[in-house]
Amino acid sequence: MMIKHMNEIEPQELLNGEVLKRVFISKDEAPTFVMRLFTLQSNASTPLHSHPWEHEVFVVEGRLKVVCDNGETIVEKGHFVYVSPNELHQFVNVFEGPSSFICVVPKEGEV
Amino acid sequence: MMIKHMNEIEPQELLNGEVLKRVFISKDEAPTFVMRLFTLQSNASTPLHSHPWEHEVFVVEGRLKVVCDNGETIVEKGHFVYVSPNELHQFVNVFEGPSSFICVVPKEGEV
Repeated sequence: MMIKHMNEIEPQELLNGEVLKRVFISKDEAPTFVMRLFTLQSNASTPLHSHPWEHEVFVVEGRLKVVCDNGETIVEKGHFVYVSPNELHQFVNVFEGPSSFICVVPKEGEV
Repeated sequence: MMIKHMNEIEPQELLNGEVLKRVFISKDEAPTFVMRLFTLQSNASTPLHSHPWEHEVFVVEGRLKVVCDNGETIVEKGHFVYVSPNELHQFVNVFEGPSSFICVVPKEGEV
C-alpha cells in the first residue's frame, strides 16, 4: 500500500506553470492505469487534442468548461467526464481561482 | 463524451445503506478501468478483504482510517491511496459526517 497527500507530490509544471500535473503512481508501478491530478490556474486550458486512449475524469474543485466536437459543457465539483478514445477534448478553467480534476488513463496514456 | 454529476447517478446501497456506491461508467462501456465514488456514513466501514486487482483511490471529503496488514493510517481530502493486487485493506469512516472517495479498478474488478 502507498499513501500520499497531493501536497507531498512535486507537481510537473506544464504550459509555463499554468497547468500543474501530479502523478500519484508511475506507469512502471501501476498494473493497469494511472491516476493523475491536474490543477489549472485561472483562464488556463489544456490543448484541444485527441489520442487513442480514454480519460475518466472527476472534478475536485473550481469550474471548468469542457470542449468537444459537439460543443461545450460547464462542470464543477462532483462532475464526472468520460472522454472516449480518439475523441477531441479540451478543459478550460473558467473559475476565478484554480480548478482541479482527477484524470485516469490506461498506463500507455501516461507520457 | 459523457458528462454526469454524481447527484445524477442513482447510488447502489451496500451494507444496509451504510455505504453508497456510484458507478460512473459501466464495465461494459469502459475500455480499461472503471471509476466509482464510494460514500460511507459516519462509523461505516468496508470489509477487510483482498482481491487480485489493484485500487487507486482519491479522498474527496471527510476523514477515513485505512487499515492494512501493517497498521492504520488516517486520510483526508487530497490523499491518494494505492492498494496493490491481493493486499488486505479496509476503509473506516472516522468523520462525524459522510466520507467519500474515488476508487478506480481495472474493469474485471467491477462486480
